[in-house]
Amino acid sequence: MKFNIALLAGDGIGPEVINEAVKVSDAIAKKFNHEINWTPALTGACAIDAVGVPYPDETHEICMAADAVLFGAIGHPKYDNDPSAPVRPEQGLLLMRKKLGLFANVRPTFTFPSLIDNSPLKRERIEGTDLIFLRELTGGIYFGEKGRKDDGETAYDTCTYTRAEVQRLAKKGFELAMTRTKKLCCVDKANVMETSRLWRETVQAMEKDYPEVTVSYEFVDAVAMRLVQWPNSYDVLITENLFGDILTDEASVISGSMGLMPSASVGEHTSLYEPIHGSYPQATGLNIANPLATVLSAAMMFEDAFGLKEEAEAIRTVVNKSLEQGIVTEDLAGKDAKSYKTSEVGDWLVANL
Amino acid sequence: MKFNIALLAGDGIGPEVINEAVKVSDAIAKKFNHEINWTPALTGACAIDAVGVPYPDETHEICMAADAVLFGAIGHPKYDNDPSAPVRPEQGLLLMRKKLGLFANVRPTFTFPSLIDNSPLKRERIEGTDLIFLRELTGGIYFGEKGRKDDGETAYDTCTYTRAEVQRLAKKGFELAMTRTKKLCCVDKANVMETSRLWRETVQAMEKDYPEVTVSYEFVDAVAMRLVQWPNSYDVLITENLFGDILTDEASVISGSMGLMPSASVGEHTSLYEPIHGSYPQATGLNIANPLATVLSAAMMFEDAFGLKEEAEAIRTVVNKSLEQGIVTEDLAGKDAKSYKTSEVGDWLVANL
Ligand SMILES: CC(C)[C@H](C(=O)O)[C@@H](O)C(=O)O
Ligand SMILES: CC(C)[C@H](C(=O)O)[C@@H](O)C(=O)O
Repeated sequence: MKFNIALLAGDGIGPEVINEAVKVSDAIAKKFNHEINWTPALTGACAIDAVGVPYPDETHEICMAADAVLFGAIGHPKYDNDPSAPVRPEQGLLLMRKKLGLFANVRPTFTFPSLIDNSPLKRERIEGTDLIFLRELTGGIYFGEKGRKDDGETAYDTCTYTRAEVQRLAKKGFELAMTRTKKLCCVDKANVMETSRLWRETVQAMEKDYPEVTVSYEFVDAVAMRLVQWPNSYDVLITENLFGDILTDEASVISGSMGLMPSASVGEHTSLYEPIHGSYPQATGLNIANPLATVLSAAMMFEDAFGLKEEAEAIRTVVNKSLEQGIVTEDLAGKDAKSYKTSEVGDWLVANL
Repeated sequence: MKFNIALLAGDGIGPEVINEAVKVSDAIAKKFNHEINWTPALTGACAIDAVGVPYPDETHEICMAADAVLFGAIGHPKYDNDPSAPVRPEQGLLLMRKKLGLFANVRPTFTFPSLIDNSPLKRERIEGTDLIFLRELTGGIYFGEKGRKDDGETAYDTCTYTRAEVQRLAKKGFELAMTRTKKLCCVDKANVMETSRLWRETVQAMEKDYPEVTVSYEFVDAVAMRLVQWPNSYDVLITENLFGDILTDEASVISGSMGLMPSASVGEHTSLYEPIHGSYPQATGLNIANPLATVLSAAMMFEDAFGLKEEAEAIRTVVNKSLEQGIVTEDLAGKDAKSYKTSEVGDWLVANL
């Protein structure tokens, strides 16, 4: 098969981790007789520097024309201290989500046996954790009307959802639950928010179409607790944009494998695959960033965007092997153990595919 | 001294834990020559059952006239499955907060050395944790305009804050930080929300009045992570209502002492003291609920509402003693260890004051 992949390396360590994912993807393509055509495009701080906007139209067209987007990370410290600056890298992210219609952010949290002791949680609390959040990504308070009144003395943000927006996200949740243990948790704040009540009634009405799925409804504050106490009691969770932002990040650190977690954003047009970690500016250019989350994001891309399960499994297998054999970057190496450079890990993966 | 305390036992285990806190408070009052006049009043599901509303006017008047409010818990399973029911116990809570002007919810999270191994987190992650959240409690999306449009197909909630609302909460945060390690963290989502940008600019402008306080600004998603990773890196945190709801609950489970955490809500009129745990309906009437969070809430009341530090310390000392000697309810007793009834723990505290 032939694929066109838009390559959005972004800022900070983005280009370095993307580079290794490209190497591994190319090796897989060669092994399985596929052809990949990569088209690089600008986004984030580097796009602002080059053309003045964080998600240029040209980048958008490249993404729309591609079979998938592989994305690194965006963000630069020079924008960090002024969240109200007129042009910011994050705006590129939000614009990209909106314009590509990426309404569902798929965020798995699972454990690697060899990394379980990295977790801040006790082993018995996280063993067996394998959950997936579906976070709504193009609605809610992120995109609602916001502004100031009373000469700037009053600020407001509006959280809005339509039934159709909830339905399309929930549908993905039910379908995903059907492929797993058939447990779905709808996370809301229906005791306070009207949008949450719309979420809850919409999901409740869909239950009859998926009679095998057991749905639970939990408040966001209760989930924030139980994620720390019994993360392995969850399977598929669906939630709105802001709750998803908070809870997926919370979930990411419990596994001890945060630096390895891949993610996908899917929706109306091209799907996008990216590591959940950020642009890690302090490590830029040092060839020390861990490329595995990006490599595993490429595996998700092969499986979900191209339907190539075997190829995805081959990537996951070699990643597991590298972990077991300690071919890891310094963030994962034990205190006195040898560690490898970003590019060395990539080379090893390619050589051992 | 003489005190009038409004006693809002509420639902579920509320009356049982409140009972022990009253016993201990009376014993302290006797020992230190104070006089307490308790005035019971209805709130929550029991108020709905009795008079049709969850926070009756009579209860409000009793609270307004009191020197402090001691509160148990509210909530009943018969209201749990329909968050849009027209009258719900939680509405009583929100109405009480609003009418009493309780704009700051003070939520400490600390560890008891004897309970540290109850935590889902590894010992080295939580040792030394001693943080306090100040959650804004009468603004934000809880009280903004909300409703439906398009024949019910679109729902919306509005999050609103005024500069004055942020200032009065932040002032308490700065003042609290001054009595501790002078570290203040302002939690927001200023990269997305206009209300957060108002929070941030308001707090930034107040920094000059507290030159000794070091202020950090962190995004809510990052805090949700770091609370699990390095909870002891925080001291005083200030945040808006909804973020506070989620993060204080998350913080409460990391210490391993959730069942023991007291809280206060303070503002324009009478202050209110309550355990952070809920009404725990399954345990109602069994005399097994842990009364210590309520007893420690009474200690907060003696110290903060009445300025009686010695009395508060006496309560905390006897609670610590009970923990060390294993005079605890079944939730804290080891698997095969003897446990005590709610009322037995209270009796022991009184006898050992
Ligand atoms: C950078 C920010 C706008 C973004 C979000 O809140 O969605 C980030 O936290 C994320 O989760 O991808
Ligand atoms: C019951 C609910 C409305 C309430 C809240 O969200 O404030 C509760 O979760 C709390 O934190 O006291």
